Amino acid sequence: MSEVKYVIGVDFGTDSARALVVNAETGEELASDVAHYKRWSEGLYSDAAKNQFRHHPLDYLESLEECITGALKKLPAEVAENVIGIGIDTTGSTPAPVDENGTPLALLDEFRDNPNAMFILWKDHTAVQEAAEINKLAKTWGGVDYTKYEGGVYSSEWFWAKILHILRVDEKVRQAAHSWVEVCDWIPAVLTGTTDPKVLKRSRCAAGHKAMWHPEWGGLPSEEFLVKLDPLLKGVRERMFEETYTSDEKAGELTEEWAARLGLPPGVAVAVGAFDAHMGAVGGGIREHTLVKIMGTSTCDVMVASKDELGQTLVEGICGQVDGSVIPGMIGLEAGQSAFGDVYAWFRNVLLWPWETLGEELGLGEEVLAKAKDRILVKLTEEAAKVDPTTTTVVALDWLNGRRTPFADQELKGALVGLTLGTDAPRIFRALVEATAFGAKAIVDRFREEGVEIKEVIAQGGIPGKNEFVMQVSADVLGMPIKVVRSGQAVALGAAMFGAVAAGHYADVYAAQDAMLSGYSKVYQPDPESSRRYAELYKKYLEIGELLAGTLRSL
Amino acid sequence: MSEVKYVIGVDFGTDSARALVVNAETGEELASDVAHYKRWSEGLYSDAAKNQFRHHPLDYLESLEECITGALKKLPAEVAENVIGIGIDTTGSTPAPVDENGTPLALLDEFRDNPNAMFILWKDHTAVQEAAEINKLAKTWGGVDYTKYEGGVYSSEWFWAKILHILRVDEKVRQAAHSWVEVCDWIPAVLTGTTDPKVLKRSRCAAGHKAMWHPEWGGLPSEEFLVKLDPLLKGVRERMFEETYTSDEKAGELTEEWAARLGLPPGVAVAVGAFDAHMGAVGGGIREHTLVKIMGTSTCDVMVASKDELGQTLVEGICGQVDGSVIPGMIGLEAGQSAFGDVYAWFRNVLLWPWETLGEELGLGEEVLAKAKDRILVKLTEEAAKVDPTTTTVVALDWLNGRRTPFADQELKGALVGLTLGTDAPRIFRALVEATAFGAKAIVDRFREEGVEIKEVIAQGGIPGKNEFVMQVSADVLGMPIKVVRSGQAVALGAAMFGAVAAGHYADVYAAQDAMLSGYSKVYQPDPESSRRYAELYKKYLEIGELLAGTLRSL
Repeated sequence: MSEVKYVIGVDFGTDSARALVVNAETGEELASDVAHYKRWSEGLYSDAAKNQFRHHPLDYLESLEECITGALKKLPAEVAENVIGIGIDTTGSTPAPVDENGTPLALLDEFRDNPNAMFILWKDHTAVQEAAEINKLAKTWGGVDYTKYEGGVYSSEWFWAKILHILRVDEKVRQAAHSWVEVCDWIPAVLTGTTDPKVLKRSRCAAGHKAMWHPEWGGLPSEEFLVKLDPLLKGVRERMFEETYTSDEKAGELTEEWAARLGLPPGVAVAVGAFDAHMGAVGGGIREHTLVKIMGTSTCDVMVASKDELGQTLVEGICGQVDGSVIPGMIGLEAGQSAFGDVYAWFRNVLLWPWETLGEELGLGEEVLAKAKDRILVKLTEEAAKVDPTTTTVVALDWLNGRRTPFADQELKGALVGLTLGTDAPRIFRALVEATAFGAKAIVDRFREEGVEIKEVIAQGGIPGKNEFVMQVSADVLGMPIKVVRSGQAVALGAAMFGAVAAGHYADVYAAQDAMLSGYSKVYQPDPESSRRYAELYKKYLEIGELLAGTLRSL
Repeated sequence: MSEVKYVIGVDFGTDSARALVVNAETGEELASDVAHYKRWSEGLYSDAAKNQFRHHPLDYLESLEECITGALKKLPAEVAENVIGIGIDTTGSTPAPVDENGTPLALLDEFRDNPNAMFILWKDHTAVQEAAEINKLAKTWGGVDYTKYEGGVYSSEWFWAKILHILRVDEKVRQAAHSWVEVCDWIPAVLTGTTDPKVLKRSRCAAGHKAMWHPEWGGLPSEEFLVKLDPLLKGVRERMFEETYTSDEKAGELTEEWAARLGLPPGVAVAVGAFDAHMGAVGGGIREHTLVKIMGTSTCDVMVASKDELGQTLVEGICGQVDGSVIPGMIGLEAGQSAFGDVYAWFRNVLLWPWETLGEELGLGEEVLAKAKDRILVKLTEEAAKVDPTTTTVVALDWLNGRRTPFADQELKGALVGLTLGTDAPRIFRALVEATAFGAKAIVDRFREEGVEIKEVIAQGGIPGKNEFVMQVSADVLGMPIKVVRSGQAVALGAAMFGAVAAGHYADVYAAQDAMLSGYSKVYQPDPESSRRYAELYKKYLEIGELLAGTLRSL
């Protein structure tokens, strides 16, 4: 019947998985469905006070099935019959210990309620100490600095720090853990029946950005380095992996079992997985000299550079540069701000405090509180946009969740500087918005200082469709137009593109983009006068950051 | 009948005048009454946007009569018959232009609605430019630095800056102004029928702290200096004054006319006037080595030092040191913070913003809004007191209204440094309270660095009776006990003491204090552990202030 082929992108986020069914010819988004992680929603296995965040593997498997079947259910049966490829993106670094079969330990009876046997979610910060040790050793052990392609600073959010931490704190897991997998490797492996740690195709993106994998030193860091870090790591390296793969490659084909569970034909191509921001950048239209910003509670800033342009340059102070992590054949560059929308939510929460504390006493119903919560940021935005910039003296630092880039530093903190008795809530909010835009500019400057040219900026994520003021300030501060991706599901769309390429439907990622991109819903043009003013204010931001950095670390 | 004698203290504040009738033997407070300034309450003659704040002289005269008669009405007739003295304190520097008879120009038909012909209230900042010129000239003209006994920095709130400003902006007033009086000089002059500028007794306190009057250079600054400052000042000096008087002296005796208006016997002694903080310090129990803090929206910090102790020392960076400005025979030292309670009110206002902006939309009545306004600071205080200090990283600078002392600098501003996503409203409030206490400590340190010993701290004003947490933090930060004055009207009580001394009822101010002080309602003892912790945090406060000062001035 139909000649039209379809692909599915599945985006595994922090709270839920989303499946998007796409026309492989046009990129038209036909249906989508979101499945929340059941155990995670109930607060199981995590402890915010200890910065411990864990995902049970069953949460992934159940929501994978739920969201794909949920989306397909909304469409005629012939769509499912003509699905040719699936692409998978996930958070990361989110590794789990596995046994010899590649089964996450938490799927074994013995470990099913042990958080250390589960996936250690990207935002889990239990491995701060281990990250510090890795950084110290990498600079001092006498051999190569394995962090050099990861921005020169290893994070507690990453692969080896998390592994070492679990090995130290949980002897049972240590003895049972044969190897370790990232969730972006494991999902495609499950779907294609290739979970054997020696067989499953590891993501170049995850390995290069988070596991210090690089061809320069033959893959993962040497056994000598790892054992120096901690003798507990002895033997782990050889049970890990040597090869890595870009996501234009097939991880394999859908098994009969999973084909049946998902209502798809067997043999559907499943692409090698990658991280959400990287596939999202592809779904948003990344090209050379284009900065793609995924702007939500935090930001991920992604670029690609040709090997010619980048040459031997090590872009210091970013989250890493990895051959093929975004687009095969190009160097993928990752940066980002550890708090963006979270900064605004923080101020909203400060303002909400009296409502939550006095609400009962003043006889305010739940409904009024919910509405206040809903409206405060909208109203703040309206009023902040109206503030005459000559009537405010506040400059903020946006590091309320530390600084991811440029130059990762979790010990930095935020600030509001220049308060007067006339400083009101909209002026504070305006300063916070400006500060997050200044943080974005600091990343752009970092790329440029290393010779990476940026010709355009593309934005996607939760913020661009929601807050025009934030976007306009960002364009003014960057002094560049910002194009907003039309699709609200560009990350899953990117995953679907990889599904199409892995299925052989397109020769490469560029061809998939040309056919399937959603276009742009709006372009924010910088206002020249505002840009000039912000160029001056940005200097104050840098100055204050430099003056206070040492003190902020000590608080 | 009665042998008991009574005295009245009248305290002229920013919004109202208060009369307090006191038993002259015991200091017992028998009755008081407050009269609000009518024209001021209606917002006449002032313009907050221009920092212009003016008091019509009729506001003073009407409220003077109203509050004294109002207080006496509450008492048996024999009390009025046995009043022997009146003491007057006022805000300052609050000068007005007067004609040859000493009549403020605004009392003449021609000028009755002209704000420039009225009293220029202490907090009027229209003379910023003129103050800058005075400071510059004082340092460069080659003669003595006339600001040296006023802390080395002349303020836009003070006498000569205000006079020069009015002379420049209002030619009619300039031509009609024969001389200028402080309101603390004018009220006693009116009551005693001695308003003739050549006759009225000028306050040592006002002249020494605000008019650069000092015996070292024969009184006011030289004609040469004033004319260099601006030729418009030519001839003003000789129509001003040479002598000044301390408040233990009589300005004169109550005229028959005013005795009739007030319902008092004629001939009652009226003391030479002085500023509120100075008389308040006496009413609170000031002695040598005692710091008296009047803590309200801002603070006034007053000390006295013997000439032996102080020697030739110039205490730099305070508001001035004047022989007899507080206690005759002692050097009165004045300092203070330009925002204290105002810092807390500022944060309350930030938190109130959503209530005021969204109240109508959410259907909240006026009553709910008023109650929220009422409760926020109480609740913040409760919760801030409970915060475990190891769980907060915020340090604030309290200069939201600039810095009065140490080292006056109106260009400084406030800051909140060390914010994280976990920083909530109580933690911010706690940091603001700590910052105001650190500001207080910086003044104490300034005195000590100049060799002025401080053995005890006495507190009065709006805050000490209202906020135990603020007082405890203050005691912890200062590392000294703070005694809270029992009387809630200690400023008027101080004025009444001067009334008693001027009437000859006591030989001197100390004798009046011994008999009439109200005692202390509470003593806040510093907690040693908390004091140690604050000693460390205070270093951070100083460090942040030093790092940011230049930037704050430039914002």
